[in-house]
Amino acid sequence: MPQGQVTEVPEDGLTTRQRRNRPLLMVHTGEMKGKSTAAFGMALRAWNQGWSVGVFQFVKSAKWKVGEEAAFRALGRLHEQTGEGGPVEWHKMGEGWSWSRKPGTEEDHAAAALEGWREIRRRLESQAHGFYVLDEFTYPLKWGWVDVAEVVEVLAAREGRQHVVITGRDAPAALVDAADLVLRTDKVKHPMDAGQKGQRGIEW
Amino acid sequence: MPQGQVTEVPEDGLTTRQRRNRPLLMVHTGEMKGKSTAAFGMALRAWNQGWSVGVFQFVKSAKWKVGEEAAFRALGRLHEQTGEGGPVEWHKMGEGWSWSRKPGTEEDHAAAALEGWREIRRRLESQAHGFYVLDEFTYPLKWGWVDVAEVVEVLAAREGRQHVVITGRDAPAALVDAADLVLRTDKVKHPMDAGQKGQRGIEW
Repeated sequence: MPQGQVTEVPEDGLTTRQRRNRPLLMVHTGEMKGKSTAAFGMALRAWNQGWSVGVFQFVKSAKWKVGEEAAFRALGRLHEQTGEGGPVEWHKMGEGWSWSRKPGTEEDHAAAALEGWREIRRRLESQAHGFYVLDEFTYPLKWGWVDVAEVVEVLAAREGRQHVVITGRDAPAALVDAADLVLRTDKVKHPMDAGQKGQRGIEW
Repeated sequence: MPQGQVTEVPEDGLTTRQRRNRPLLMVHTGEMKGKSTAAFGMALRAWNQGWSVGVFQFVKSAKWKVGEEAAFRALGRLHEQTGEGGPVEWHKMGEGWSWSRKPGTEEDHAAAALEGWREIRRRLESQAHGFYVLDEFTYPLKWGWVDVAEVVEVLAAREGRQHVVITGRDAPAALVDAADLVLRTDKVKHPMDAGQKGQRGIEW
């Protein structure tokens, strides 16, 4: 059910239809891991609309989120075979971006992150996808590897109907200001606090 | 990456492996809609493990979450055809539970909710699924249609390896107390506050 009510009609000169179809910039932040999980859940809806889904993971290790990756790759193959849903691309920094000739190195995450952002910028400018997940992208921003002002500018200037969701802790204020939707997921209680380690199917 | 550290080893007489494989009861609550979305994101991992996924939606309208439903039904068909991932069952109260002879009526949501819970109870007792999503199940609990104490008792007594995630606002205290993992998703900023209505691919 819709969990939000329109409280005022903005004086932005847009028709209801134009406003309804305005592409969204969404930020999922907070202390807990529901952030990425919710972003991938949203991407399911985009896939079902037949939109091109592009996932870009700014993570070092390939261990995490393999479950989501496998499921989305399966949905992408299903699209290729049957036309159902939309196409899916899934790119990871950790093992070197798939479009890059350079293998990922442990030494130069900053350069790899910047290269990832530049590719995303090119795709936004050419309207390559309908739904982008920039997973854990707040970290390269926080660490100064990618310029926040440039990201906000490119996102604000993007054309067509390209929805973008950015996940990660400590989202920079300029990004939060620019976002249409900001969600915070926080822990109330976690099994690791009770001494339980991560387990397959739950943590990855 | 793992967003939680083991801070103490509990004196519960379990080995690390036993504790690692302990099935979890998870509650996603809070004011915003990331709750269900994150639960479905987790279910992607369960599917990828080859576990049987059972989704039970305690919602009146069939309009919402059609994107997630379509994607999971596609993953379920993929499993049937290729053996990849796990089987998927998706049941909705809104149009009458699929196992029921009675069509859903607008008048008797309380009876329909109780019938849904009784079926889930039977499935938990027969270890029918590896991963259960009880979507919006906090509402029948809140409204007294389903007895919270019974739910907590059945969940505590469940055998084998059955993970359960329950979503919805206002999770009852007894359920939160019984849960291993509780996540709260709260709104920082939402486009509906700026006068934007829901749109396809984003809200459903």
